[in-house]
Amino acid sequence: MGVEERRRQLIGVALELFSQRSPDEVSIDEIAAAAGISRPLVYHYFPGKLSLYEAALKRASQELAERFIEPREGPVGARLLRVMHRFFDFVDEHGPGFSALMRGGPAVGSSRTNALVDGVRQAAYVQILAHLEVEKPPARLELVVRSWISLAESTALLWLDGRRVPRGELEVQLVNDFAALAAVAAAYDEEMAALVRRIIAGEPADGPFAALSARLVALGAPPA
Amino acid sequence: MGVEERRRQLIGVALELFSQRSPDEVSIDEIAAAAGISRPLVYHYFPGKLSLYEAALKRASQELAERFIEPREGPVGARLLRVMHRFFDFVDEHGPGFSALMRGGPAVGSSRTNALVDGVRQAAYVQILAHLEVEKPPARLELVVRSWISLAESTALLWLDGRRVPRGELEVQLVNDFAALAAVAAAYDEEMAALVRRIIAGEPADGPFAALSARLVALGAPPA
Repeated sequence: MGVEERRRQLIGVALELFSQRSPDEVSIDEIAAAAGISRPLVYHYFPGKLSLYEAALKRASQELAERFIEPREGPVGARLLRVMHRFFDFVDEHGPGFSALMRGGPAVGSSRTNALVDGVRQAAYVQILAHLEVEKPPARLELVVRSWISLAESTALLWLDGRRVPRGELEVQLVNDFAALAAVAAAYDEEMAALVRRIIAGEPADGPFAALSARLVALGAPPA
Repeated sequence: MGVEERRRQLIGVALELFSQRSPDEVSIDEIAAAAGISRPLVYHYFPGKLSLYEAALKRASQELAERFIEPREGPVGARLLRVMHRFFDFVDEHGPGFSALMRGGPAVGSSRTNALVDGVRQAAYVQILAHLEVEKPPARLELVVRSWISLAESTALLWLDGRRVPRGELEVQLVNDFAALAAVAAAYDEEMAALVRRIIAGEPADGPFAALSARLVALGAPPA
């Protein structure tokens, strides 16, 4: 194998191990064994576990950011739902590693790993603004989008802790949460209200936003 | 001064400095100067900056957790609004230190500091359940409450970054966000629906939840 090929292989093996267990618990010996090479050879390509972890995290970050890419066609609610589905696929595949990273810890809380996580958040933010067709977001919209991204993260983390609610339900719920947070901001700001009206106008009668409206109206009515 | 008194004084001085600037930028020399003692004397009480930082963070965590305590009287929405006001007071007082802590970084991302932050989140969670008069929360309620706590954190962090939206508006918005997230979960789950109906029933016609409902209905209507 060439140097780059060997590095790529090691990153792939490491990412799989770092995904399945907390990175603190994964040793260089294990990575070497899984890659079928000697421990000194691992160190030949990566000076230490941290650099290999950072390389694996970088690859995972790129993978996740790619899953946010969605054609700008059809209702926004349905697009967001497809992205949420791919996001939960990612979280599912990388569960323990994702938890360890997001909860922070001795091996994962470096400024470089934080920068990678922030890069993924920024990629998500840019994608959402593009789908909303907003170029210069007002402060209140930025707040809604960025705080919703953090809501999606924390919802995924809580889901991983026991998986007591079906993930499909949470995917729909997060799409509805986005609409709900935007609607709350819109209730107090005319610029946000105009944006929300424009999105609602593009939503089909059988889409997730319309379904939520109907269910919320029903909630206000006395129980059957 | 006695040992405990001196330690308390140093913690107070350090907390003030760590609140005003990123802890990475605060030196032991500065803390010593602000406390009016020599650098070696600081080391006599605390083995290093990290242990002093952790002691200051512990005090700040206790302060913040105390601000969540609210008498269990009157409508839940108004109680939550008072807590949000005290939460933003805290964030305002400790801005740069709060940001540095929550965004993670070399000096702040230890497992002990993470445990302190998680302790505050848990205190908030326990308080909210008590106000909702729920002893054994179903999984969906736990998810709503915990993910809303993370929404409040991220909203406060985003607010600190430029303060482009008045904090009073965000305090009201977060109370409404709580109602909105609970309503979304309630739209898909009968147990949550019963809980939300019970809370709504206790809300006054001029409270934040009622105001939100009216504004959301107006949002659905064509613009004036």
